[in-house]
Amino acid sequence: MTTHGDANALLSEIDGIGIDSDRGGYTRPVFSDAELELRDWFDAHATARGLSVEHDGNGIIWAWWDAPAPADRSEHRARSGAIVTGSHLDSVPGGGNFDGPLGVASALAAVDLLRDRGVTPVRPLAVAVFPEEEGSRFGLACLGSRLLSGAAASETVRALTDDTGRTYADVATAAGFDPTSIGPDPERLADIAAFVELHVEQGRGLVDLGQPVALAGAIIAHGRWHVRIDGRGDHAGATRMADRQDPVVVAAETVRALRAHTLIVDDARGTVGRIKVTPGGTNVIASAVDLWLDVRHRDDEAVRRIVSEVVAATGRVADAEGCAVTVTEQSFSPTVFFDPALRERMQGVLPHAPVLDTGAGHDAGVLAAVIPTGMLFVRNPTGSSHTPSETAEAADVTAGVEALADVLEHLLTR
Amino acid sequence: MTTHGDANALLSEIDGIGIDSDRGGYTRPVFSDAELELRDWFDAHATARGLSVEHDGNGIIWAWWDAPAPADRSEHRARSGAIVTGSHLDSVPGGGNFDGPLGVASALAAVDLLRDRGVTPVRPLAVAVFPEEEGSRFGLACLGSRLLSGAAASETVRALTDDTGRTYADVATAAGFDPTSIGPDPERLADIAAFVELHVEQGRGLVDLGQPVALAGAIIAHGRWHVRIDGRGDHAGATRMADRQDPVVVAAETVRALRAHTLIVDDARGTVGRIKVTPGGTNVIASAVDLWLDVRHRDDEAVRRIVSEVVAATGRVADAEGCAVTVTEQSFSPTVFFDPALRERMQGVLPHAPVLDTGAGHDAGVLAAVIPTGMLFVRNPTGSSHTPSETAEAADVTAGVEALADVLEHLLTR
Repeated sequence: MTTHGDANALLSEIDGIGIDSDRGGYTRPVFSDAELELRDWFDAHATARGLSVEHDGNGIIWAWWDAPAPADRSEHRARSGAIVTGSHLDSVPGGGNFDGPLGVASALAAVDLLRDRGVTPVRPLAVAVFPEEEGSRFGLACLGSRLLSGAAASETVRALTDDTGRTYADVATAAGFDPTSIGPDPERLADIAAFVELHVEQGRGLVDLGQPVALAGAIIAHGRWHVRIDGRGDHAGATRMADRQDPVVVAAETVRALRAHTLIVDDARGTVGRIKVTPGGTNVIASAVDLWLDVRHRDDEAVRRIVSEVVAATGRVADAEGCAVTVTEQSFSPTVFFDPALRERMQGVLPHAPVLDTGAGHDAGVLAAVIPTGMLFVRNPTGSSHTPSETAEAADVTAGVEALADVLEHLLTR
Repeated sequence: MTTHGDANALLSEIDGIGIDSDRGGYTRPVFSDAELELRDWFDAHATARGLSVEHDGNGIIWAWWDAPAPADRSEHRARSGAIVTGSHLDSVPGGGNFDGPLGVASALAAVDLLRDRGVTPVRPLAVAVFPEEEGSRFGLACLGSRLLSGAAASETVRALTDDTGRTYADVATAAGFDPTSIGPDPERLADIAAFVELHVEQGRGLVDLGQPVALAGAIIAHGRWHVRIDGRGDHAGATRMADRQDPVVVAAETVRALRAHTLIVDDARGTVGRIKVTPGGTNVIASAVDLWLDVRHRDDEAVRRIVSEVVAATGRVADAEGCAVTVTEQSFSPTVFFDPALRERMQGVLPHAPVLDTGAGHDAGVLAAVIPTGMLFVRNPTGSSHTPSETAEAADVTAGVEALADVLEHLLTR
């Protein structure tokens, strides 16, 4: 295994896992061979560091550095007041090697660094790995943290399906997980004093500011909607234009309307990045199109207004075409303001780090609703994300580990 | 095996092969397990009828009912002056059980019927099965007949790829075919006096006319174009709208423009039925979109005008978005007028059958460029095609077999 305390070396250990030669970059969906291999890799590193590895009912890994139980808290559970850091190992299709793994590798490296410094924690530390943060397999981002916090219902999650139609329950079972054990875990949450997630930045904020590391201010509101358009499949050559009920024509209007309604709201973001045409033959008028809207803005209501305008525009064209439209909200996360008291403490440790908002969702954003949560961002020279061109300089990765260790030392020793 | 001479029973024998539980109907791409099983089924039926089965270098099956060589043609090849009938067994994704198999089953049933009638052919008859008529796997429709006639170059075909990126050469080899043996076969074509293909109708012509069987007049011009739009992949939340180069937005304009430019040309048909978004994540701005145009009209030039307008409109939006567009013509088939002398003979045999044009391509359309060719259509009550709702009444199937047998008897005995 890698050089002690070097997150860059840790990341290079996994740069051959889940390579996607078709799209470029990495495709590591939850419960795939690649993601399972990454989980094993993490477990081996945690074990080698003497951390006790626990796989909870939600598929979250917790690697514990236990502190001696203080005399005055003997009636508490052994791990109460814990500090948690970590991130995720799953990826979007064709993503980079930093989105998720950087936070996990930096957490392991920070543990090494704290030990090098001779830090003796007065409270426990866990390095956590959350499954399906991207939602790229089952459509629900931050699945693990949503289950843990109760933001997603267990029954709903078990019935979620992937692109091949397999349910979460079936896929989890096949990968050796017990889908009946998922669900909220308030006792575990009650033991956590703070969660700090380090993540590669997914925009150009730090590039513009000339800084290697930032603190998170807020995660702007973010929702996903599944739009299903049902038409009538037919022959592309033999069917007159007037006889058609073509859902692809309606889907094109959905894309156009989303762009138009997003552009007129300052700093809103609207994206269609996933479209499935059924049956998908060149010489076949489609019978159905599934597509997904991703809409974000700092103002929750602005997001909802954009979506309702897009749904209305889609409905008008669908009526004219004789198609039926069904819109399902898959997730909606209001703007998350990270815990101000925790951020103040982190700013005390890292006085030069700027505070940035982000348009990307994170497990830290979900957990912020139930426990004090903060984030660190590491500079990404390209500003690109969810693409192989996402990156981080080795020196910035090291700076991120040091910043994380500084914050953890502060939190663990008080 | 089935009742002698009953095409309905033959079709019901294969109604469990290649079922697509996701899309509905059947998915039987060339060289798939389903298509190979259908080929074996055909070979067994041909052999049981004493036909001699030949698999040629292009993957076409020829099942020969040889006639005694007449004394006055002793210097000719044994099979010169042959009559050929047949169709294909591959399907579009989620197609019906009639498009292709009806022509094959009717040909076998017609052989039975001719023998019941005591017909003694003075020339050979072959029942032929053509591979990849739909082009749904390698993107080139009528692949078998194009190879046979020289309309597709062997080198080009070997390099065609399917959705998974595998080449024709690799897929054919894995299925037990020799991809080095494909190519034009002028000697075989020189032996064929006429080809008559029976096919389920793919529109509402016979429904409107109240007739069970029609003769084909023309196949309207038909082309396929692959449109590739390259943008820049990025994060759907972290990337400002002004910084985007989103190929999905451009693709939506391609769909819109195709509909608009098709509608203003009387009786033109324009379809986008296949779209591939890369990488295809909900929270990922796409890096590329592939889509395919299917355009048809009785006037070759009208097809080309529509495509050039759509390409121009796509280019304008792509320029504004910072995307690059590449358009590749995958096939173009000018309007095919079937052999007038052959049709006159067929009309003599079937005086009540109307003559209909069709917007669908066929192997008969490709072969019409090199040998006298005709077609029979059987009524389709729904008028739908390339969908599970395509159908034919049992009585009309029987009427189609009788019409085919009548035509073959006429051609084989003169």
